[in-house]
Amino acid sequence: MERSHLYKNLGIQLDMAVEAHDVLQQERQSNIAGVEMYKNKVGHSDITTVKITSPEGEEAMGKPMGNYVTIDAPHMKVNNRDIHQELSGLLAQELSKLLHLGPDDSVLVVGLGNWHATPDALGPKVVNHTMVTRHLHKFAPEELQGGLRSVSAIAPGVLGLTGIETAEIIKGVVEKINPTVIIAIDALATRSVERMATSLQIADTGITPGSGVGNRRVGINKETMGVPVIAIGVPTVVHAGVIAHEAIEMLLQQFHTSPSLYRLYKGLNPDSMQQIIEDVLEPFGRDLIMTPKEIDILIENTSRIIATGLAQALHPSISSSSEGLQYLQ
Amino acid sequence: MERSHLYKNLGIQLDMAVEAHDVLQQERQSNIAGVEMYKNKVGHSDITTVKITSPEGEEAMGKPMGNYVTIDAPHMKVNNRDIHQELSGLLAQELSKLLHLGPDDSVLVVGLGNWHATPDALGPKVVNHTMVTRHLHKFAPEELQGGLRSVSAIAPGVLGLTGIETAEIIKGVVEKINPTVIIAIDALATRSVERMATSLQIADTGITPGSGVGNRRVGINKETMGVPVIAIGVPTVVHAGVIAHEAIEMLLQQFHTSPSLYRLYKGLNPDSMQQIIEDVLEPFGRDLIMTPKEIDILIENTSRIIATGLAQALHPSISSSSEGLQYLQ
Amino acid sequence: MERSHLYKNLGIQLDMAVEAHDVLQQERQSNIAGVEMYKNKVGHSDITTVKITSPEGEEAMGKPMGNYVTIDAPHMKVNNRDIHQELSGLLAQELSKLLHLGPDDSVLVVGLGNWHATPDALGPKVVNHTMVTRHLHKFAPEELQGGLRSVSAIAPGVLGLTGIETAEIIKGVVEKINPTVIIAIDALATRSVERMATSLQIADTGITPGSGVGNRRVGINKETMGVPVIAIGVPTVVHAGVIAHEAIEMLLQQFHTSPSLYRLYKGLNPDSMQQIIEDVLEPFGRDLIMTPKEIDILIENTSRIIATGLAQALHPSISSSSEGLQYLQ
Amino acid sequence: MERSHLYKNLGIQLDMAVEAHDVLQQERQSNIAGVEMYKNKVGHSDITTVKITSPEGEEAMGKPMGNYVTIDAPHMKVNNRDIHQELSGLLAQELSKLLHLGPDDSVLVVGLGNWHATPDALGPKVVNHTMVTRHLHKFAPEELQGGLRSVSAIAPGVLGLTGIETAEIIKGVVEKINPTVIIAIDALATRSVERMATSLQIADTGITPGSGVGNRRVGINKETMGVPVIAIGVPTVVHAGVIAHEAIEMLLQQFHTSPSLYRLYKGLNPDSMQQIIEDVLEPFGRDLIMTPKEIDILIENTSRIIATGLAQALHPSISSSSEGLQYLQ
Repeated sequence: MERSHLYKNLGIQLDMAVEAHDVLQQERQSNIAGVEMYKNKVGHSDITTVKITSPEGEEAMGKPMGNYVTIDAPHMKVNNRDIHQELSGLLAQELSKLLHLGPDDSVLVVGLGNWHATPDALGPKVVNHTMVTRHLHKFAPEELQGGLRSVSAIAPGVLGLTGIETAEIIKGVVEKINPTVIIAIDALATRSVERMATSLQIADTGITPGSGVGNRRVGINKETMGVPVIAIGVPTVVHAGVIAHEAIEMLLQQFHTSPSLYRLYKGLNPDSMQQIIEDVLEPFGRDLIMTPKEIDILIENTSRIIATGLAQALHPSISSSSEGLQYLQ
Repeated sequence: MERSHLYKNLGIQLDMAVEAHDVLQQERQSNIAGVEMYKNKVGHSDITTVKITSPEGEEAMGKPMGNYVTIDAPHMKVNNRDIHQELSGLLAQELSKLLHLGPDDSVLVVGLGNWHATPDALGPKVVNHTMVTRHLHKFAPEELQGGLRSVSAIAPGVLGLTGIETAEIIKGVVEKINPTVIIAIDALATRSVERMATSLQIADTGITPGSGVGNRRVGINKETMGVPVIAIGVPTVVHAGVIAHEAIEMLLQQFHTSPSLYRLYKGLNPDSMQQIIEDVLEPFGRDLIMTPKEIDILIENTSRIIATGLAQALHPSISSSSEGLQYLQ
Repeated sequence: MERSHLYKNLGIQLDMAVEAHDVLQQERQSNIAGVEMYKNKVGHSDITTVKITSPEGEEAMGKPMGNYVTIDAPHMKVNNRDIHQELSGLLAQELSKLLHLGPDDSVLVVGLGNWHATPDALGPKVVNHTMVTRHLHKFAPEELQGGLRSVSAIAPGVLGLTGIETAEIIKGVVEKINPTVIIAIDALATRSVERMATSLQIADTGITPGSGVGNRRVGINKETMGVPVIAIGVPTVVHAGVIAHEAIEMLLQQFHTSPSLYRLYKGLNPDSMQQIIEDVLEPFGRDLIMTPKEIDILIENTSRIIATGLAQALHPSISSSSEGLQYLQ
Repeated sequence: MERSHLYKNLGIQLDMAVEAHDVLQQERQSNIAGVEMYKNKVGHSDITTVKITSPEGEEAMGKPMGNYVTIDAPHMKVNNRDIHQELSGLLAQELSKLLHLGPDDSVLVVGLGNWHATPDALGPKVVNHTMVTRHLHKFAPEELQGGLRSVSAIAPGVLGLTGIETAEIIKGVVEKINPTVIIAIDALATRSVERMATSLQIADTGITPGSGVGNRRVGINKETMGVPVIAIGVPTVVHAGVIAHEAIEMLLQQFHTSPSLYRLYKGLNPDSMQQIIEDVLEPFGRDLIMTPKEIDILIENTSRIIATGLAQALHPSISSSSEGLQYLQ
């Protein structure tokens, strides 16, 4: 069975467009119609842009048309402030390309996720560190007038804690304060162990239903919110099923030389692989996640990197992150 | 200068109706027209009900017409589960008298306050422990159908962290989910050191602007929300100005025998007392609070007492708090 | 390659004696000399006692001679106070069998682990909830004299945060306060997804080097501490390598019918399996853990269950956990 | 009654030498024999050094002979990273003057206080952010050999949580690891509202019994520990009694013109003032503290400032705090 279908059956969402693209290309051994990919390197980071340009690409990728920018920065894990600053600057730069903000545009930052489940707490932590100005805006001292944009921020919580669809809460707030754009922060699942806490995805398509560590139930995007939604995500977990599957795949490669096994493998009931993996993961199923032991600290650092990047991208007057931090908690 | 005016000038809100009433009565040496007060004792607790019954009483008390029930329970501080359970039961009982819920009515619990400022974090902590059911409601197993009411809960944060009026966020959510009633939890300021973390106020008038540890800016009540709002408050701080003033008052009593001083005192420029106290509290002013050293643990316990009381009051099927806790986090 | 050796090479410790025993028995298809096992059922819980009775058994099991009691309680995850109380009572009962405390014996509770890494924070959290009495002991009111035992508690942190061997810190304290016995609490790794946060192991052999989520470096036992050490552990993680291996094993079982594959498998270079799994887990290796998404709350509840059980086992006068909780934070 | 005696009777400790000196000088209207004071200004900060040079000064000040350096930095409260860095550098510089470390000397950082009581949690939070190297020391890469000093850190907790004298725990660890010097971090009480979270005291006399927010019971100094102890403190609370007393004093000044009152005041039973204040503060007494509402965030920032300053002072190779932070959590 193709990996893409297997993942689907196992409820493993490929949150990162670059990963969905890799899986597809590997299966098809060809480019995917309606999908373009560009790579370049900045400092220590690799930037990969995936563009989904047609309904055909949308269908194949299982993601809406739009731009998905991935910043892979293995050094994000190093606890060095200069490196974190470099990454904040890079995020600000890529974010600005998708934001196209006018001088008077206002922004609502939404921190998705559950602050009581560490690997899902990225969004609320970014909100903690976000420099909000909407309430100060009209009273800001002269010298800041030019620079300070109106920014507000909420952490709506998760359905299990509020009893309310997260999208309902956000929409209710949006209708009250009418932001020009929403920036939604969410923790993602990845299929690559290397990417955990070392990668950032910025997408101008908002949040897709079923995505994120919390498997958000309802989409948070232009259709549901009425304003553009930029999503910023960081992979913090790998679905346990991915590890199980990787192990099996690697074993089978060992046997490639053997035609007899190859036949056996091909003869294997397509559902067996899925059955095996589900058996291994019982009773937690999709709620069983793989994460680094020190995830608590990785989330804390990553949330500061993002908040500083936001401050730079949203407030033109804030040139260096040092200024930016002036307002961060 | 009368205490009531001094407090007003110093920005010291008397959040507890029973205290506002005491101050007035002491000043006027008489009953206050349009205000009634009843006392009774249940177990180890004193229950005082203040009823504001006319615009005249409203004017005098600086609080809207309605019912204010105070449960004074000095033993609330004792870390004993049986005592906490007794208090949860008492809260449930008094709350039910003001709620008048029909079988199909739904409730939105709102935890006001700042989870990053311990003495103001009572509301958000109650929300953490609240048993939400709105999302489960339609799917609840047979045996619960009769008992489980639709309950949702949010902790909207504070203006300084979100950039959005708390009332705006709540109203936005209310318009989406249309609860029958709102129960708002807030940390209060008291003028009585004894009451800190040992007292509960339940009011059917909602949240008054300027009240609470966070000096909520906009009222959260039937006028602003469109549905009835029951407020549950626990005093967690004493305004530092109250202590300063108490000390001065006590000193002056020492001198009561002296006519010469009494003249001096009466001759004292009414603003001097206010000036003295403001000087003492500089530079923090009204943000300088008095609180017990172990406030962190007192808040944790009190939030569990309230959450358990809510579970009993809102879910008829939950007879004992033991069942109630089944759903609490 | 035998599973026991594979785990060893992968640095996967079998913290639970009952699991080490199962693996061995499966490999040898026979009883293990010097190891006895007894099972019985109490309420909803299964209690399994593994006794290692000879150096031969020690050698085979890779664990010191002594008693290992496992309480498997799948319902531990249910958030119901009555169930938690039943489990606290069961823990108290099994613990007492291994403690043999005299009326004047004193106890030091040690919470091992890193409070900044949720799945490793069980020990410090139990210490938070532990009722300490050593400092009150001589001043306790009459009516408690008979019941209150001298109990102290420390959370020494981990090498990475202190720069000091945990065992050194504990030994230093032990030499100052001379407890009769140490009870060490630690988070464990399991090979069984079902056991996470639903199982308790009590051992009178103390902490073995390399065990626990934190892979404790130095043993904490009678040899190193000079006093008996009882270890209480709860599995909170599964090593990712276990999942990878389980998946492979299950796949191979699919092929059991095929002699040709069986030959291939047998012919497989013993190190390949290990290599496969290490490749899958790079770059995190043994620091990559599998844990339920809601581990934060599971740890909070489990730590309260243990603290309440300790209060009952250590303080004869505390019959019901309700009294016990009177002293818990 | 003299303020110094009143404070003593009320159990109000003057933790800051500079404040004890001011009170004395005000009372005596003269210099204090055996006590010297020097002031200078660096950047935005005022540095005051108090030297107690004789037993006579010791007696008068109620503090042991030695050096007490106070850095008053009102801008510490501004949330700006550059300002925090300047303060870290200043702390490092003043600390080095008292430390006199040789190249191979090792340091134990001790974070005093209760991590469950926010205003007392400064010490443990500094430990969280401290760069420990003792365990890495022998394995450090070549290029760091010259720079990395052996540093360890513990947060021993408080008597109420451990049942063990804090000094006993520290002494036990000291005897195991034999540091050259101890640096103890503690939250202090001040009599000046302005100083809260804006002042640092460095003393080469260690911790005096009864000092700190937690009223440490046993001294932590060269006598009890056997090695020199440098204390770093930040005032985080004002004893409520101080506010009460300040208010009274200010009122009395209003009346200075009146001889009749002055007589009355002088005739006032010396104990009355104390009685008044104790009455005002009942039932919490000395556990009633005054603190800014946002103390949680002030403590977080201050702990990072101190940890960065320590990294610079202890590790010669760490020139800028940016490098320093590389190792901080």
